[in-house]
Amino acid sequence: MTQPTDPVALTAELVRCPSVTPTEGGALRLLETRLAAAGFTCQRVDRGGVANLFARWGAHGHPDTFGFNGHTDVVPAGDTAAWTHDPFGAAQQGGWLWGRGAVDMKSGVAAFVAAAIDFVSETPPDGAIVLTITGDEEGDAIDGTTALLDWMADQGERMSVCLVGEPTSRDTLGDMMKIGRRGSITAYFTAHGVQGHAAYPHAAQNPIPALARLVERLSAYPLDEGTRHFDPSTLAVTTFDTGNPANNVIPGICRATVNIRFNEVHTADSLTEWLRAEADKVTDETGIRFDMDTRVSGESFLTPPGALSDMVARAVEAETGRHPAMSTSGGTSDARFVKDHCPVVEFGLVGRTMHQVDERVEIAQIDTLKRIYARILADYFG
Amino acid sequence: MTQPTDPVALTAELVRCPSVTPTEGGALRLLETRLAAAGFTCQRVDRGGVANLFARWGAHGHPDTFGFNGHTDVVPAGDTAAWTHDPFGAAQQGGWLWGRGAVDMKSGVAAFVAAAIDFVSETPPDGAIVLTITGDEEGDAIDGTTALLDWMADQGERMSVCLVGEPTSRDTLGDMMKIGRRGSITAYFTAHGVQGHAAYPHAAQNPIPALARLVERLSAYPLDEGTRHFDPSTLAVTTFDTGNPANNVIPGICRATVNIRFNEVHTADSLTEWLRAEADKVTDETGIRFDMDTRVSGESFLTPPGALSDMVARAVEAETGRHPAMSTSGGTSDARFVKDHCPVVEFGLVGRTMHQVDERVEIAQIDTLKRIYARILADYFG
Repeated sequence: MTQPTDPVALTAELVRCPSVTPTEGGALRLLETRLAAAGFTCQRVDRGGVANLFARWGAHGHPDTFGFNGHTDVVPAGDTAAWTHDPFGAAQQGGWLWGRGAVDMKSGVAAFVAAAIDFVSETPPDGAIVLTITGDEEGDAIDGTTALLDWMADQGERMSVCLVGEPTSRDTLGDMMKIGRRGSITAYFTAHGVQGHAAYPHAAQNPIPALARLVERLSAYPLDEGTRHFDPSTLAVTTFDTGNPANNVIPGICRATVNIRFNEVHTADSLTEWLRAEADKVTDETGIRFDMDTRVSGESFLTPPGALSDMVARAVEAETGRHPAMSTSGGTSDARFVKDHCPVVEFGLVGRTMHQVDERVEIAQIDTLKRIYARILADYFG
Repeated sequence: MTQPTDPVALTAELVRCPSVTPTEGGALRLLETRLAAAGFTCQRVDRGGVANLFARWGAHGHPDTFGFNGHTDVVPAGDTAAWTHDPFGAAQQGGWLWGRGAVDMKSGVAAFVAAAIDFVSETPPDGAIVLTITGDEEGDAIDGTTALLDWMADQGERMSVCLVGEPTSRDTLGDMMKIGRRGSITAYFTAHGVQGHAAYPHAAQNPIPALARLVERLSAYPLDEGTRHFDPSTLAVTTFDTGNPANNVIPGICRATVNIRFNEVHTADSLTEWLRAEADKVTDETGIRFDMDTRVSGESFLTPPGALSDMVARAVEAETGRHPAMSTSGGTSDARFVKDHCPVVEFGLVGRTMHQVDERVEIAQIDTLKRIYARILADYFG
């Protein structure tokens, strides 16, 4: 048996790769080298200027294929001068490792890559392990995991189940996993009136009160009461603008943006239909016409508690003594794409410092995370 | 008797003075020269970088002092290339005289200056004539007619009644005069919430729906039904802005502007109180706090139909055959300042092309206007 793979050293090496979206920064090349050396078949699946890595150990299309998904791209460091240590230096101090991506999610990737390499070397399973690692999760996510899944469908590659290594723990490692995520849709409204002088409002058609009525009504509407596994869906008006430089002119148009985070009660289509109907009602009442564009970031997904989530929970409990809450809270993740391919859950570190200055990870927890992932593989193939 | 003063030539001379607010442009100097030569006591009353002219014929503080008010400043020419003739050229063609200020209101000033000069020369009255001519009507109007009235109060100068020579006719010379104007107040609201991520609206306090509720409610509120001499007051929301560049962030503040044109049912104070109370109601309902600043452009004024308006109407009818409607419609004018000094009405040309490209005046109507003003003087002193 060879020396076990050190996930902390691998995290540090990854942090030193300046892989701010969409730059590859050497991170995927590093992983490809390591995985290929361990017997994984590697394939770069680059699309639209974004780098992605597919790696498989074991037989193509094996019915028992365990999948891991993660990303090596990171958000910008922000104010570099405000950091205690170089955001791309991977400095270690007082039991912590500093750097952009230290929790989100180079440590998660390092942990599952290390776990997978050691697992196939120590106890080669009757099955396959597939790693899908993207360089486009923090950006538009158009050519990231989606590109990998498209390529896999073309090639007949598969994952039977998938674990996304995003930071999911809330306060302590092991206290929370994700079995679903809310969907997200953004609607862009443009209200069309007729410009005019403020002194003669009857000669104009002011779009502001109509758009105000619409967004006020949308904000007050209870979308649902929540479900067994989901909090209630939420709606937030994020912009409302006329851009009118003159106080004595009624503007001809104004615009507002509405973002909805929705659970399984809704779909992007059902919400689009509802938003359109509400806008049409206000048009009937006011005569103001609304254009509406929508952008769907993702549908909601839920992998109901069962074999996969239980397996993850068992491993977490064995290593941390904590039974993870099965949550669907938080923003979106690439699990929203994977769910169309196979059952997917998410488990990883405490995400508290992600996207912040001085993002850092407790070094010991990277080792614990590797052990949890290894335990899941042993359980799955056992 | 000397040669009568030609109001068309004087209009042309004034149009050639490039007196875009706040530039004097030679216009008041020209008038001062003419009026002084005709025996008027002239005094430049300049304040805050703005030029104004006071001129009196007759005794200081005479109980029978007829006043005229007008302005020589003009709005910018706009797209000069789009004009048929040089906006400061006073070209005459087909019975029209072209130029910025041709109707608003260098022709009006020329007509009352010419009428006054000829009147005192032909039939010197037992009384006084006071002309208050400002270079700051189109701008902020802080140092214009107000400065003249302040100075007059200091000096014990007076007007017993005043006629403002603004263009008041609607379609045909003589069809409308103004016996009042609506007031104007602008309120600037800032709604204060708590910024947050769109995915977690409960952790934020979104100011947009609250401000939307406020402006929608204000827009729907019937301020009054109008009065005998006034149309109903109107309210227009003219701006609503968050300036939020991010669709996934709930902004901490947003702003809206509301302009109210109000009749004698209201005062700036009563409306300020009402707006504040409505904002406070929404605060009680939503927890969102509103800052409110107000700017009062003018209170409403009304000179009820009577001796002064009848005198003007008689002169108009004698010269044009039309009985002018006694209106209070339209924007604000400097009559809003004069009304605190003495009874004031307004009569002048058709204003249709004012503030537009190719502003122009029908030449014959300048002569008619001078005759109307002369007839009013004869009636007043007769």
